[in-house]
Amino acid sequence: MRAGTGDPAVPPHSPSTEEPPEAWILAIGNELLIGRIVDTNSAWLARRLTFLGFRVRRIIKVPDDVDDISLELRRAIENAKVVITTGGLGPTYDDKTLEAVAQALGVPLELNENALKMVEKFYSEKGLPLTPERRKMALLPKGAKPISNPVGAAPGVLLEWNDRIIISLPGVPAEMKAIFDDHVAALLQRIAPPRKLWECRVVIKGVPESTLAPVLDDLARRNPEAYIKSHPKGHETRSPILDVRVLASSPVEGKAEEKAEEIAARIVEEARRLGGEVTERSCGRPD
Amino acid sequence: MRAGTGDPAVPPHSPSTEEPPEAWILAIGNELLIGRIVDTNSAWLARRLTFLGFRVRRIIKVPDDVDDISLELRRAIENAKVVITTGGLGPTYDDKTLEAVAQALGVPLELNENALKMVEKFYSEKGLPLTPERRKMALLPKGAKPISNPVGAAPGVLLEWNDRIIISLPGVPAEMKAIFDDHVAALLQRIAPPRKLWECRVVIKGVPESTLAPVLDDLARRNPEAYIKSHPKGHETRSPILDVRVLASSPVEGKAEEKAEEIAARIVEEARRLGGEVTERSCGRPD
Repeated sequence: MRAGTGDPAVPPHSPSTEEPPEAWILAIGNELLIGRIVDTNSAWLARRLTFLGFRVRRIIKVPDDVDDISLELRRAIENAKVVITTGGLGPTYDDKTLEAVAQALGVPLELNENALKMVEKFYSEKGLPLTPERRKMALLPKGAKPISNPVGAAPGVLLEWNDRIIISLPGVPAEMKAIFDDHVAALLQRIAPPRKLWECRVVIKGVPESTLAPVLDDLARRNPEAYIKSHPKGHETRSPILDVRVLASSPVEGKAEEKAEEIAARIVEEARRLGGEVTERSCGRPD
Repeated sequence: MRAGTGDPAVPPHSPSTEEPPEAWILAIGNELLIGRIVDTNSAWLARRLTFLGFRVRRIIKVPDDVDDISLELRRAIENAKVVITTGGLGPTYDDKTLEAVAQALGVPLELNENALKMVEKFYSEKGLPLTPERRKMALLPKGAKPISNPVGAAPGVLLEWNDRIIISLPGVPAEMKAIFDDHVAALLQRIAPPRKLWECRVVIKGVPESTLAPVLDDLARRNPEAYIKSHPKGHETRSPILDVRVLASSPVEGKAEEKAEEIAARIVEEARRLGGEVTERSCGRPD
């Protein structure tokens, strides 16, 4: 964390805990609910959180409504160690995320001096005055800390609530990503269990998904810690192409590699037995 | 609805009701929660539902877990007239949507003869046998009706529950879209209020979002039935470009056009007063 964003007093994750800590993502904005834009932020965040060792269990899109947002926030806080919101931090009337965070936690919104400095600096460098709308971006829930935004005006917001962490990021993808990579990743790394991930990919031609299904089911049942999924690419029966992914993760060095490659080898073997042709096979650290 | 999918006994929407009926979307699949794929299905469905006159209030991504899915389904049914799920209808072990629907409603899964005929026909045309995995796609919650899938093997599923409608669609976008456009749209049209939509777009150069914010806030407050949103495209202060959308909807012919164009004209006027240049201005039926 850089100066000004505070040094959060989150205890590091105990390495003895095997179960990954839970994370929820709330994507806020009417434009998502009317289908004007495809929400790419959530997938980006989900991937980052997964690699950091969290288990993302819900991604929820909520309209720009204080009651709706705060209701979903309360559910998220009840269930997840980490809650990340995107959107609704800007200067306009329909940017209501921080008001909803305050309502969910029963704390007031108040002017945060550090946030105000960040917003003031952003605009004064451009010779622009601090209007009430711009000042609004420095109204944070009591107890929250601003996180510097290297790209835009609205700071991100960090709130520690008992043993939970609520992080609010802007909805503009460039700002969301910059704040996450510059500040949030390091903060979460401190509480995430150190995990290694390994992913194998097997592309199979000539075996319909439903024919391979019993094989994958059996492997999934016997390897609950791995994630096995087939994605049909060609036509199910005319020219079936199956893209099978195996993602293994483990806190133990070398264990994820071993597990993913063992499962992938079994899939290759079974695919060939079923008359399929393996047209691609690769393994690596997912990124 | 085509033959074999049944003629649902849903009463048509009363045109006197002004408030649009609520819809929730549940997107099911671990791959969404680990960020492997961006969920484009939900935005597509949300846009279709909005145009049909529904208000989409939640889009929730849930992992392939029966308890998780059925918990979110119960919440959705409590709140929404229409619940649409995508994903989890296929032949593999981790396709658990119908099991979760059955659990949420407290009904058993049972072999549906019409669904079995659809699945059987799909595979027999390709000279393939009906394995237990393929047969699984015909196990429907008691009381449900299959909806023919013109593209793939897994039928869609329609369940009417008291005055609620639960529709389960496959996660493969081509299958989801085909079932929706061929069957679901007509079914929902019967219960949606007939609404006209009209959208105006104003692109403004040279006014930062935070400068235009009070104008848009004021318009939004005075026109709660319209949806006004600004999307910053350029850099907030160096070279600000604002893409402002105004979406109005009304059950009364001509009213949405009137409202959207009136608001857009005000935005153009105010943008120019603030020293901005209007580089684009268009209105039309959104699609």
